[in-house]
Amino acid sequence: MCLNYPCNCKTDGTPCESCRMTAKDRETEEAQLSKNINTEGQARRTCEPEMNISSSGAAKECGRNWGWMLSGIICLNILMLGCALVSGSAYNNVDISSSDLQIFLIILLLLTSIWMIYYAIYTTKNENAVLYKDGHAGPVWLKGGLVVFGFLGILMDIFKIANYVGYLHCDSAVKVAFPVVQLIFILVQTYFMGMHAKDCAQLQKNITRCGLMLTLSTNLVLWMTAVTEESLHQTIIPDYPSNTTKISGRSLFIQKASYGSDKCHCSHTSCSMFKEAYYYLYPFNIEYSLFASAMAYVMWKNVGRVSDEHHHHNIKFHLRNVFLGPVTGFLLVIAGLATFIVYEMEMKKHNSNGKKDTFLMMHFVVNIVIVTLMSVTSVIGCVIYKVDHREHVSEKNPTRSLDVGLLVGASLGQFIISYFTIVAMVGTGAKSYLDGLNLAWAILMIIQLGLQNFFIVEGLHREPFHEIHPVSSVVANPYVLQPSKELGGFEEKDMDTKPSPVLTERNPHGHTVEHRSKLSWKRWVLKEVCAFLLLANVILWIMPAFGARPQFDHTTETKFYKFNMWAAVVNIGLPFGIFYRMHSVASLFEVYLTT
Amino acid sequence: MCLNYPCNCKTDGTPCESCRMTAKDRETEEAQLSKNINTEGQARRTCEPEMNISSSGAAKECGRNWGWMLSGIICLNILMLGCALVSGSAYNNVDISSSDLQIFLIILLLLTSIWMIYYAIYTTKNENAVLYKDGHAGPVWLKGGLVVFGFLGILMDIFKIANYVGYLHCDSAVKVAFPVVQLIFILVQTYFMGMHAKDCAQLQKNITRCGLMLTLSTNLVLWMTAVTEESLHQTIIPDYPSNTTKISGRSLFIQKASYGSDKCHCSHTSCSMFKEAYYYLYPFNIEYSLFASAMAYVMWKNVGRVSDEHHHHNIKFHLRNVFLGPVTGFLLVIAGLATFIVYEMEMKKHNSNGKKDTFLMMHFVVNIVIVTLMSVTSVIGCVIYKVDHREHVSEKNPTRSLDVGLLVGASLGQFIISYFTIVAMVGTGAKSYLDGLNLAWAILMIIQLGLQNFFIVEGLHREPFHEIHPVSSVVANPYVLQPSKELGGFEEKDMDTKPSPVLTERNPHGHTVEHRSKLSWKRWVLKEVCAFLLLANVILWIMPAFGARPQFDHTTETKFYKFNMWAAVVNIGLPFGIFYRMHSVASLFEVYLTT
Repeated sequence: MCLNYPCNCKTDGTPCESCRMTAKDRETEEAQLSKNINTEGQARRTCEPEMNISSSGAAKECGRNWGWMLSGIICLNILMLGCALVSGSAYNNVDISSSDLQIFLIILLLLTSIWMIYYAIYTTKNENAVLYKDGHAGPVWLKGGLVVFGFLGILMDIFKIANYVGYLHCDSAVKVAFPVVQLIFILVQTYFMGMHAKDCAQLQKNITRCGLMLTLSTNLVLWMTAVTEESLHQTIIPDYPSNTTKISGRSLFIQKASYGSDKCHCSHTSCSMFKEAYYYLYPFNIEYSLFASAMAYVMWKNVGRVSDEHHHHNIKFHLRNVFLGPVTGFLLVIAGLATFIVYEMEMKKHNSNGKKDTFLMMHFVVNIVIVTLMSVTSVIGCVIYKVDHREHVSEKNPTRSLDVGLLVGASLGQFIISYFTIVAMVGTGAKSYLDGLNLAWAILMIIQLGLQNFFIVEGLHREPFHEIHPVSSVVANPYVLQPSKELGGFEEKDMDTKPSPVLTERNPHGHTVEHRSKLSWKRWVLKEVCAFLLLANVILWIMPAFGARPQFDHTTETKFYKFNMWAAVVNIGLPFGIFYRMHSVASLFEVYLTT
Repeated sequence: MCLNYPCNCKTDGTPCESCRMTAKDRETEEAQLSKNINTEGQARRTCEPEMNISSSGAAKECGRNWGWMLSGIICLNILMLGCALVSGSAYNNVDISSSDLQIFLIILLLLTSIWMIYYAIYTTKNENAVLYKDGHAGPVWLKGGLVVFGFLGILMDIFKIANYVGYLHCDSAVKVAFPVVQLIFILVQTYFMGMHAKDCAQLQKNITRCGLMLTLSTNLVLWMTAVTEESLHQTIIPDYPSNTTKISGRSLFIQKASYGSDKCHCSHTSCSMFKEAYYYLYPFNIEYSLFASAMAYVMWKNVGRVSDEHHHHNIKFHLRNVFLGPVTGFLLVIAGLATFIVYEMEMKKHNSNGKKDTFLMMHFVVNIVIVTLMSVTSVIGCVIYKVDHREHVSEKNPTRSLDVGLLVGASLGQFIISYFTIVAMVGTGAKSYLDGLNLAWAILMIIQLGLQNFFIVEGLHREPFHEIHPVSSVVANPYVLQPSKELGGFEEKDMDTKPSPVLTERNPHGHTVEHRSKLSWKRWVLKEVCAFLLLANVILWIMPAFGARPQFDHTTETKFYKFNMWAAVVNIGLPFGIFYRMHSVASLFEVYLTT
């Protein structure tokens, strides 16, 4: 676990930039006696752990040096330039081709890969480079997800290469070069993140900060590119009987990513198959970039932190006694998947409105049922938290702060779509039964989002559950308390083998068993709630990620806002909504483990 | 100054929710002995100031209760609904009239006003409601700005009422009701913020949190509305010879805020005069909402904080010895104003391209000169900071964190416009001399923004300058050190009248004078830099705020991105850019004072 004192010279004796600076300062010739007094007083103040006034504030200031700001400025500039290029290349009538964007991306990917290799070699050669590791950073689920999504990303790149090779005779070679470079980048980055995600870099801090910010911005630009391509691919321009909309709609949303021109034909026969295949892998590639961004950000936050290494989370995952949540959740996923497949096939087949409406209604009803069940479950979870007096965690943790920020931030995407739907439905008066269902879905979705955010944030901020662990219960010193967390999974074994002296002294009448079962009641409900919500979020992730767009299939909003504006809202909001579901799954898994 | 321990039961004895809860918890029948041990250990941990592990983290967790999250959810919902209504009402072909939006705003304004009056009465009646004040919150410049902008906002509302009364016979009464309600709201809010900006509310914390979030979101929705109206007003659709652009351009940007219909005529003669007048007051109204939002946010952060009252910033403003910066800055403002007025008049008069180009060139050259001078000055300032060994402040401060966040966040608006310009200029090859100037301006603007952000952030994080103050130099306890800040303005007087024992003991040879002049050299340069940058930001604020739109007057970008997309980029980015200049002025003023 990283402590908050990079400048705490006295307790651990690590070299401290700030202290060195003031020491040097004292020796310079311009330091008169009077100034000396002043600096001495202040130096002591900066470098001692300030017990009473906001120690983490002090730590933050110490790290806030030139490299910190320089890395921020680099990130800002890459992001803004990427943003301009991505949005320019998405529009058909802007003179930025997707090759221009891909050249920019190739440069970014190569730079980042080179830096990551340099960092890996440097830290291996230099033993002092990484003295400490942050136990919270790069948890197993994040690393596992990164490897899985990385593998699927590599698969996508191979399909892309196979597809674009067929066009080499009539299109630019950049379209083949980009997936090749991206493939190498994914390999390098997955290795880098797997090995170094927990590092608190101590040497070459400024270079490391800049490198990590480069990694972060590269991944975010990749994410933007993938999201834009995917949105354009999923947006089918409706046969809407208005001239204005048609013109602007078409000029806006023609798919530049795929091959629209009739002149260039694929030289081998399996092109269309590869194209079909890699579009299904897009959602995973999008998640990969986000996972890597999150890890790079946490590593950036950890640069220069001083921490102790022997803090391992060994909470084990098991489904013992948890039955109702997983089973109902699993049934929900099956039901959702079945209706989703039927819905998707029908939407692609039929163009007559009558049949479409039936399947739209089915989709709305299934979603309403899912969202309602989730809201009820979240309420139960919140009530349990209100009843449960487990303490809030008191320790600062960049990984968790980022988790909460991303969760609430990403939920805004779904929020905005729902509110636009509500306004449109209320504005048109919700005349048809489909409008009514759509309105109900939007309102329930907002309620569900609010409750789920509440539940997850509250869950992430509770202390991991430890039933009875003597060490943790007797010692008040938080330093010693900390390691008790890692024992959360072993409490029962511990209890049977090593009855603590305190326990036997105070509790000689065998209350232990009763106590365990009583606590288990709350834990059990919370675990059921988590498991159910987790699976429900999986199905809510699958539907939009693999192409369900009731927002366009149901035309009331398109008519109310006109295609142009509504497509912008959905295409900006939905990627965040999809990420929100994905991220909720990960957070709920963490809550499940710590409960 | 607010301390970071709302739950610090032992040091000050204030009531503490978390402690009470665990105490009650201990008494409940389900708390077995074994659980008692556990809870006791943890209770002590939560409520004691944790010396070593991130105390501010603990404080944050303690405050993270239900009211905290509920207020966040309220804010989110109001903002999203507001966003949907505002963007819907901005488009001509969406069925949301501006009256619908205004009814929503009236409800919000009334609710907020009622809550603010309730709070004011409650805190006056109940003496325990506000025990502590945060000395950092609501500084004089913020309160002064609020009063000035509030006054101009009231003026705008009076003009609006006078204007819309003339249309009462043929348009809805909501258009008159809205400015009336807004006028009352501005009066109530300015009083409320003036009286209560420094409050750290202790009673009814959850209601206060929700009320403050209501205030914050109301102001943000008002800001969105004003920004949208102002952007639509300033965007003149060009006579661009393409059919597609014309259609979508017109359908997007017809001014719904003003009276477009030919049927409804004003019943008195001075309508157009009032309309002309109130559009000039829009920029101030926009700033008013942002100032109020910032103050509401800081108040929300301060709810439940425990602080001591006797911390006053009495740093005085004076221009002694500072001459070069203000004078050159003032000359720059005069020159900028003169060319701006000429430019604006010519743009309105001439439609022939030849004459327009001359004045566009003038505008570009003036801007390039201003931005170059600012970059050079910022570099000088940064070098001084590098040479100067003044300590970084170690104390946590929500006002400053917000300041820095807003500064960097708002600069993104200008960043994005500049990067879009660069991409367009590079894409078209920058053939004409105007394109070259535009490209140079965009690149220099990015450099200037980066350097200025660097300079201001660094300046805000330095300790206020105190030359020699015996109390602060001898005592190492940060509690006692803190008040030394307030003496920053009086150091010279202090030195002459009260020579401290330490000073006379260690420094008997009269080095004091020499030391003072040496330090003054760095202070002097920094003050000159601040003064110059401040005035330069003022002129860069005036130009876009009062309607200079070289982005549309120069047509290369419009042709490259098409009007639709370019207008969206400028209309979203520029309001942030304008706010950035305004906010920089305020921040530079603070840096000037503390240097």
